[in-house]
Parts: sequence; structure tokens; C-alpha cells
Amino acid sequence: MAIVLDVMGGDKAPREIINGAVAASQILREKLILVGDIEKIERFYHHEYPNKIELVHASEVIGMDEKPIEAIRSKRDSSIVIGAKLVKQGAGKVFVSAGNTGAVAAASLLEWKQMKGYKRPAIAVTIPNLHGGFVLLDSGASPDISPESLVEFGEMGMNYAKSVMERRNPRVHLLNIGEEVGKGNAFTKKAYHCLEKYDWFAGNIESKDVFRKPCDVVVCDAFVGNMVLKTGEGIVDFILELIAQQLPKSKLARLPFYFAKKLLNPLKQQLDFAEYGGSPLLGLNELSIICHGRSDAKAIKNALLQAEKSIHHDLMALMKR
Amino acid sequence: MAIVLDVMGGDKAPREIINGAVAASQILREKLILVGDIEKIERFYHHEYPNKIELVHASEVIGMDEKPIEAIRSKRDSSIVIGAKLVKQGAGKVFVSAGNTGAVAAASLLEWKQMKGYKRPAIAVTIPNLHGGFVLLDSGASPDISPESLVEFGEMGMNYAKSVMERRNPRVHLLNIGEEVGKGNAFTKKAYHCLEKYDWFAGNIESKDVFRKPCDVVVCDAFVGNMVLKTGEGIVDFILELIAQQLPKSKLARLPFYFAKKLLNPLKQQLDFAEYGGSPLLGLNELSIICHGRSDAKAIKNALLQAEKSIHHDLMALMKR
Repeated sequence: MAIVLDVMGGDKAPREIINGAVAASQILREKLILVGDIEKIERFYHHEYPNKIELVHASEVIGMDEKPIEAIRSKRDSSIVIGAKLVKQGAGKVFVSAGNTGAVAAASLLEWKQMKGYKRPAIAVTIPNLHGGFVLLDSGASPDISPESLVEFGEMGMNYAKSVMERRNPRVHLLNIGEEVGKGNAFTKKAYHCLEKYDWFAGNIESKDVFRKPCDVVVCDAFVGNMVLKTGEGIVDFILELIAQQLPKSKLARLPFYFAKKLLNPLKQQLDFAEYGGSPLLGLNELSIICHGRSDAKAIKNALLQAEKSIHHDLMALMKR
Repeated sequence: MAIVLDVMGGDKAPREIINGAVAASQILREKLILVGDIEKIERFYHHEYPNKIELVHASEVIGMDEKPIEAIRSKRDSSIVIGAKLVKQGAGKVFVSAGNTGAVAAASLLEWKQMKGYKRPAIAVTIPNLHGGFVLLDSGASPDISPESLVEFGEMGMNYAKSVMERRNPRVHLLNIGEEVGKGNAFTKKAYHCLEKYDWFAGNIESKDVFRKPCDVVVCDAFVGNMVLKTGEGIVDFILELIAQQLPKSKLARLPFYFAKKLLNPLKQQLDFAEYGGSPLLGLNELSIICHGRSDAKAIKNALLQAEKSIHHDLMALMKR
């Protein structure tokens, strides 16, 4: 079973994507199908490919800021559309892309359709915390859902946590603005009511607590999930900028701060979403893994290892309701 | 005109609240009315009060975790209810409390009622960023509002930014999960439509950008505002905990990290919500300033100075629509 990789997607494509693929191919047991503009790819990679890597040509590229639906309709020969098609045809098993998130989600939905029992797809993002991280979904696939959809998101998240995250007996929390029953807005109150029937439901959790309390799966609607994710990203960048501003200008005066860097480097790493690879789009008949637009070779390599793990644990079979 | 202060509210009440009041009284021109259990207060403060401070007895205390509506109904002699009443009767001008946020909001609404032209009150929280901070509202007063309410929140926020924050020509952004027109969920799409008629509206802003782009006033519903705020709080605590875990155990081995602390202390300060005093509850006929439950003397002092600023700039007159 091959993993299909979009070589044209992301701010650092194609160079970093290809480098990530080559690095991963040395560890992976699965084959890799790279989809992209062969001419452009050759400008960045002159060596012979490892025999685990195969190239498929796609003449078009969907830009990071293009409107998803329009883009996948008009650019049928783009790496995103061709990648999703290859998985549909059975040539590959998982589609990995650091391209336009909306376009990857739209192409995946269009080509693969929802899995039986799941009305709306969800993007599951792994977020670091003091207990090895948790998965937050939906982080951006389906806005304006009904509260019932959070039950589906909970099941998707649990299957992902059990398999790819290798978490034993994962439980599901509802992201809310208070811990007690009855807290929240109309949506989360209804969602609580839907979720409380399930023994895997662990109640409400506040966004200030997800980082310090043990949790496996946290569910919310796409608007809230995306908001939390981007707040986190913004604050981490803000803190690093504040630190940079405080450093003295001259190299000599900076010397005493050498040890401060020692403290902050692993921190930066721990907070870096790229370390966690990509985010699976769950709820469809096939799996795509969507990487951050800023992904470098390391993030791509991690996403490809994650893709192999999902095949190895047969995530898609687990997902069946 | 006196400022009314709830001495019994907050995790560090009454000691830190009294200390904050005494410190502030040395700078303030306004009188201070302290409301609380006189017996308990006397256990912490034996000296004679500065002549700017007056005490009003309240025999009951509303706990931080009590249900707001029930609490203000059953505890009519609590410091929160009496404080709000004193302002209603004209004995004081602003009510400051670090107590149960919901109870302060409920008592304020019950005693003072909405100001004409404002359907729903909003809590405006000042958040640090690279450009001197911005005010986010609603951060928790009114869940499940209609999109039209964001226009009122925008006007409240602008008046606050103009007066207490002394910001010239403040503009209002809509907090959203994308910058372009048409992004977001059904609620923010409708809200955008309501807001775009006003020349003070500056469009959508993403939560990752509020920390790095210049902005004055950012509006959203209470659920989203509270979520963003608590995510921020959670991440800052998480980062400080990660740093603490990385420090070597022995004092000797910690020596080289002395300079790291030099870096992190001002950072902690810059990210500390207490530095910014309290958060005004806007849209009612009188003003309350709600402080963080963790407030210490310094935070209370800052909130009292903020209260005086709002009197000095006649915020309530500015607010009239």
C-alpha cells in the first residue's frame, strides 16, 4: 500500500516536501507516490530517487489562498485533485498534503464521500500538554454543525487516539467555558446532553485546563476549534517575539543569555505543531493528513510516519460505525 | 465621587484587597468605600484608615463557585449586592470587585439595568500585544446573543478605548477564523454584514493576528471571547510550567540559569492580566470593574486607578447612544 504525497502544497514546496519524502523513505515500509509538476520537482531534486518513491505528474497547483471549492472544480489537473483521485482508485492508501487546507478537505470529500454513520468530517489536531498531548476536533473542516455531530467527532477522536496515538481507553471531553454541568452556550448545553449517554464521555473541560489536565480527545465545533488553535499559535509567536526584543543588541552583552536559550529551545520544540506531523481529516471513506502550511522536511517526514501508523493500525477499519 | 470596593471577593480577600485599597488611596483623588464584613476586615487591618477610606458593613459573602442568580437573590446582605446598591443610590460612582464574576454581573444588571440603546452588557478585557494591547469584548457577560449585538459591543469598546485607554481614533475588528470577507461561521458572517455599515469597522481579524497586528477593539460573542481568554491563560501557565520542569534540581546547577530568569520575569509581567487591572462590564447605567479572582494588592490598586480614570473621562456620558 502506497502513501500519496502532494509535493506542491505548502509555503516551502516543493523543496522541503521532497526532502521530507526522501528522509521518510529510508524508514517507511510503504511505497511513496509523489504528485506534482515533474519539471519543477526536477529543479530541486537531481539525484536518483530511492526505489520506494514513484512520481506522478500534475500540471496545475492550487495556491494557498485560492477559494477551495472553485479551485478544485477548475483545476482538475492539480496535485491535490490528482492525489485524492489516486487514493480513490486504490493506487494509494493515505493522502498527505501541506497545501490549501480547504481545498484538500473539499477534494477529499468530493472524491471519497462521507463514511457511513458520519455526517460531517472533522480535522483532528494533536496539541501538546503536560500529559503527552491530546487531540482536538473539529479544528476546521465543518462549520455550523448540529450538536449531535460532536458524538461522531468523539468516536472519530477515540479511534484515532487508540490507534495512531496508542492511547489506552481514551475518553472524550467537551470543550466549554465552565466545568460544571449546565455551563456554556446553547450549543454546548445541547451537545452535553447528546454526549452524556456515552460511557466514554468525561464531561466539560475548559480551554485553560486542556494544557494541564490529562485528556485524550476534546471535541468542539470547527469555529471554536480553529479559534483555540490560532490563539495558541499567536501567543507562542508573541512570547518568542517578546523574548527576542528583550535580548541585548550586542553579541558580547548577549553572552549571559546563552543559558536562557538552552531553556527556550526545547520549549520551542515542544510547542511546535510541526513536531506532531499533520492532522488527519476524519469521517470520510479514505484518510487524508493535512500538514501546516509552514511545514518543513521534518514535519513532512513525521506526517508520513503518521500515515504509515494509520495503515498499520488499520484506522479506517476501526472507524466503521 | 467615591469608588466602591468589594473587600470580600477574590481568592486573596480580604487581605490583598485591603492592601490594594490602602495603596491606591495614597494616589487617588476620589474617596473609597470598602464593603465587607467589618469584623473580618479588622482581623487583617489594625491601623487607622487613611481619611479617604470609609467602611460599610456587609454580613454575607458570595463564594467564587456559587450560582450567580441564586446567590444574589438569597444573599441580599452580601458585599456584592450592597456594593451595587451603593452605586445605584449615588453614594459611589464605580463598583470594583474581584469576586464571583457572574454574581457581580448579575447584581449590576439587576440594580442598574441596561443603558438605553444597549440590549446586552459585555465584559471588556484588555489583552497585551506588540502594540500596547487591545480590548476584547464580550469576554463572558452575554452568551447566545444575536449578531446585531456586536455593533453595540463595538461602540462600547470604542468609547472605552478612547477614554480609559486614551487611544486616538480607535477602530473595531471582528474576531474570526479568516481575514477575508465571507469567512467564518453563520454567526460571524451575519455580524460582518451588520458591522460593515459603520466607518469605524476595520474588518475581520484572526486570533493568531491580534497579538502582532495593531488593533484597538476586537468584538466576538461571550463564548468565543471567554474561550480565547482562557486558552491564553492556559498556554502561558503551560509554558511557565515547562520552563520550571527544565530547570535543574540543585541550586548550584541552577546558577547558570540566573540570566534566563532575567529574561522571563518581565515576560511574565507582560503576560499577567493583573497588570492591566480589572475588566469593565459595559452597557449598563453604571459601571462595574471586575477583577481576576487571583488579584493581589497590585491588581486591585490598578483597577482602582482605572476606575478613577473612567470617572475622570466621564466614560458613562460618552457611552450614551
